[in-house]
Amino acid sequence: MLNAAYDAFAERLAQAVPGLWIGAPEPRYLEEPRGRWFGQGGLLVKPADTAQVSAVLRACNEARVGVVPYGGGTGLVSGQIAPDGPLPVILSLEKMAALRKIDSHAMQVEAGATLQQVRDWAEEAGRRFPLGLASQGSAQIGGCLATNAGGVNVLRYGNARALCLGLEVVLADGTIWGGLKALRKDNTGYDLRDLMIGAEGSLGVITAASLRLFEPPAVEGTALFAVPSPKAAVALLELAQRQLAGCVSAFELIAGQGLAFLREVGPEVQMPFAQDPDWCVLIELGLPAGMDAEEAFGALYEAAEELVLDAVVAQSEAQRSALWELRESLPLANRRIGAISSHDISVPVSAIPAFIDAAQGRLTAMGDFRINCFGHVGDGNLHFNVFPAMGRQRDDYVALRDAVKRAVHDLVVQGFDGSVSAEHGVGRLKVEDLERYEAPTKLAMMRAIKDALDPNGVLNPGAVLRPQG
Amino acid sequence: MLNAAYDAFAERLAQAVPGLWIGAPEPRYLEEPRGRWFGQGGLLVKPADTAQVSAVLRACNEARVGVVPYGGGTGLVSGQIAPDGPLPVILSLEKMAALRKIDSHAMQVEAGATLQQVRDWAEEAGRRFPLGLASQGSAQIGGCLATNAGGVNVLRYGNARALCLGLEVVLADGTIWGGLKALRKDNTGYDLRDLMIGAEGSLGVITAASLRLFEPPAVEGTALFAVPSPKAAVALLELAQRQLAGCVSAFELIAGQGLAFLREVGPEVQMPFAQDPDWCVLIELGLPAGMDAEEAFGALYEAAEELVLDAVVAQSEAQRSALWELRESLPLANRRIGAISSHDISVPVSAIPAFIDAAQGRLTAMGDFRINCFGHVGDGNLHFNVFPAMGRQRDDYVALRDAVKRAVHDLVVQGFDGSVSAEHGVGRLKVEDLERYEAPTKLAMMRAIKDALDPNGVLNPGAVLRPQG
Repeated sequence: MLNAAYDAFAERLAQAVPGLWIGAPEPRYLEEPRGRWFGQGGLLVKPADTAQVSAVLRACNEARVGVVPYGGGTGLVSGQIAPDGPLPVILSLEKMAALRKIDSHAMQVEAGATLQQVRDWAEEAGRRFPLGLASQGSAQIGGCLATNAGGVNVLRYGNARALCLGLEVVLADGTIWGGLKALRKDNTGYDLRDLMIGAEGSLGVITAASLRLFEPPAVEGTALFAVPSPKAAVALLELAQRQLAGCVSAFELIAGQGLAFLREVGPEVQMPFAQDPDWCVLIELGLPAGMDAEEAFGALYEAAEELVLDAVVAQSEAQRSALWELRESLPLANRRIGAISSHDISVPVSAIPAFIDAAQGRLTAMGDFRINCFGHVGDGNLHFNVFPAMGRQRDDYVALRDAVKRAVHDLVVQGFDGSVSAEHGVGRLKVEDLERYEAPTKLAMMRAIKDALDPNGVLNPGAVLRPQG
Repeated sequence: MLNAAYDAFAERLAQAVPGLWIGAPEPRYLEEPRGRWFGQGGLLVKPADTAQVSAVLRACNEARVGVVPYGGGTGLVSGQIAPDGPLPVILSLEKMAALRKIDSHAMQVEAGATLQQVRDWAEEAGRRFPLGLASQGSAQIGGCLATNAGGVNVLRYGNARALCLGLEVVLADGTIWGGLKALRKDNTGYDLRDLMIGAEGSLGVITAASLRLFEPPAVEGTALFAVPSPKAAVALLELAQRQLAGCVSAFELIAGQGLAFLREVGPEVQMPFAQDPDWCVLIELGLPAGMDAEEAFGALYEAAEELVLDAVVAQSEAQRSALWELRESLPLANRRIGAISSHDISVPVSAIPAFIDAAQGRLTAMGDFRINCFGHVGDGNLHFNVFPAMGRQRDDYVALRDAVKRAVHDLVVQGFDGSVSAEHGVGRLKVEDLERYEAPTKLAMMRAIKDALDPNGVLNPGAVLRPQG
């Protein structure tokens, strides 16, 4: 059982870690983007370097006080917010935001740097760090790695995990693991890096990372293709891969419902088609020198025949930005409408059309909803979000909410061998889902590893796994 | 302390696992490719399915008998051979070699299928499984995953780890973890898949895998470029990435010394240049439809200016095969010459030229050697192998062998922050190296995980980590 971080512990911490920033958390450390969870007051610390993180964890571990690591606060599953349990220490990495070094193949950055800053550093060096999220202006790279963030370029470059070469991690007892080697191939023992990535701060606190850098493609282009159905979208993806294997950087599904939401509640964005199509896909290509993006899109359009109804190819950087703005505005419109239940799910790519059909069918039988289903179809990852019917309120559906979530998740797992947590993580929101849907063997292995690396359970208590004792 | 698998245990196993193939191992199960290690007799079992693997492990765990998982036997670090300790059970996966299912995005295969068979299944489905090794005709996919094998296409497609979507694993106590979901994005808890990949059978026995499939590039081409130096090779790689980001499938360094070995001892292969260059790089491109491989190589050649001395572009499938045969014959020539010490190392890609210079300098100061340094320069991974001077024998160097290895490894780790086990794994050959070069924190984490998942230490005892007690 953990102890609460009351005043006496704050004094002890101040003595144990000279120079440490200690204070009470402002409200922003206790809220999360969707406003569904509120954290407890606790104690906020902002270590200035890895040694201070180490000293904080050592003190917390000795005193059996929980530690909630805090990055940019953009997580959607409450991994950064502890609403109950003994008062924890909130450990914000914001003061550790330096670029330690960079060359043409890799960069070493501290965990508190925002994703946008990391991308900018890469760009200044003539390279690219291809992790891209709508929240990249606030999200910190440490949090992106702790949650194995996904985003819009996973199709080409992989999740955060695939972009990370090495980590510096502080363990529960304060020990520092300096695993920052920037190697593409390194088979010296167990893959501790990937164990830490996606563990959401429950096995260690990531303080720095070595990241892969890429050469930006010589030629890039963006287009929006209107398609008759999700089935056509998946077939179009296969066609694009056949013509342009490895050069499709993004392939994002957008539902007509999403466009309707934008028209209804904003934000105001440029609408690409006179009449909103039922479905469209935003495609980004990154091509070799000597190719022409417009010609490549043209060849795809011709070969696609009845898979495509209409297409807009960006002719300028402004047009390209406008298409991306449309895509990136969907989550804000969703929040303004107010979802009954949101689902960050994945299924095998080829099962996407059948899943959408089946899920719509199940929900139609349950009530009157609007469904905005969009996302990273190239990764088999959809944000399948369920909203009130036109003119009705989210509150009208309180009684149905759990049943909606259960129906969607049951279908994902039992019908399509999919995942109920594709790219947003487990946090505290999905601990029960994990217990419901994952094999007991997997949960037992996770528990054994947690107990082995954090025997007192001080690291992000209640996230990913239910707290013990 | 483990018990030996004597006759009484064989009887017990036969009773516990009806129908199990049990016998004495033929010599081929006790040898390894370089002939440096010999295993003990032990007991050989060949389970027919996952349930039998489970029953074998349960019985071994209860009786505290060690289990050495056995794939194709092509490993170079003795992960599949136990030369000492109590007599273990050798568990061969060879009877579990089925294709369970395949669609356009993924395939599910059993661990005992050879890599060549897996590649063939993919090709029959019009797809590609891009893991490629010289030993792929014998190496089994389970072993490739257990060792996180690398090979010639890592630059484009990643190591075995990056090509695996899910695993079925039998744990030490016989529990089966069915983690075969074929998802590109799945953040439901700790990354147990990547923990098992590269653990070399010391945390569980991989019995099946879900693998990623790729669309073969529309256009492919192969060329050999003669370059003046490793520095020019790395600069040429950067140039190729700038022109053709994402489309460089392989970029392999070949030393003039390697060509000289082929001329000296064979095997006889077609030599591409009239006069052997000091260095050359084998480049494979996979391009979008509409591009021409010869033109792409031509543009690269022109832009490269003084980075390239000469070039041969394959004009036919036969010429392409001949270039690859040259590359794939290097290890055999090396074995015929007989290395004093071989080093599977990696350093940051940009440090490759400085490492080669420094390593040659250190060795020149130690004695009279020939060095054949070749490999996957695009991944920062070199096989830096040290041979006797012309006319001398390996036996003349016995006294120097440990010092040579130590000098190379010290330089890799201390001088270049590199790895002494890039793609071949740790096995039993490099357990001491791990203890010497890896941080105590990392070793302690590995030990904690091993103890948590295999508390009796029955899984591949002595591999990766020294046996306890």
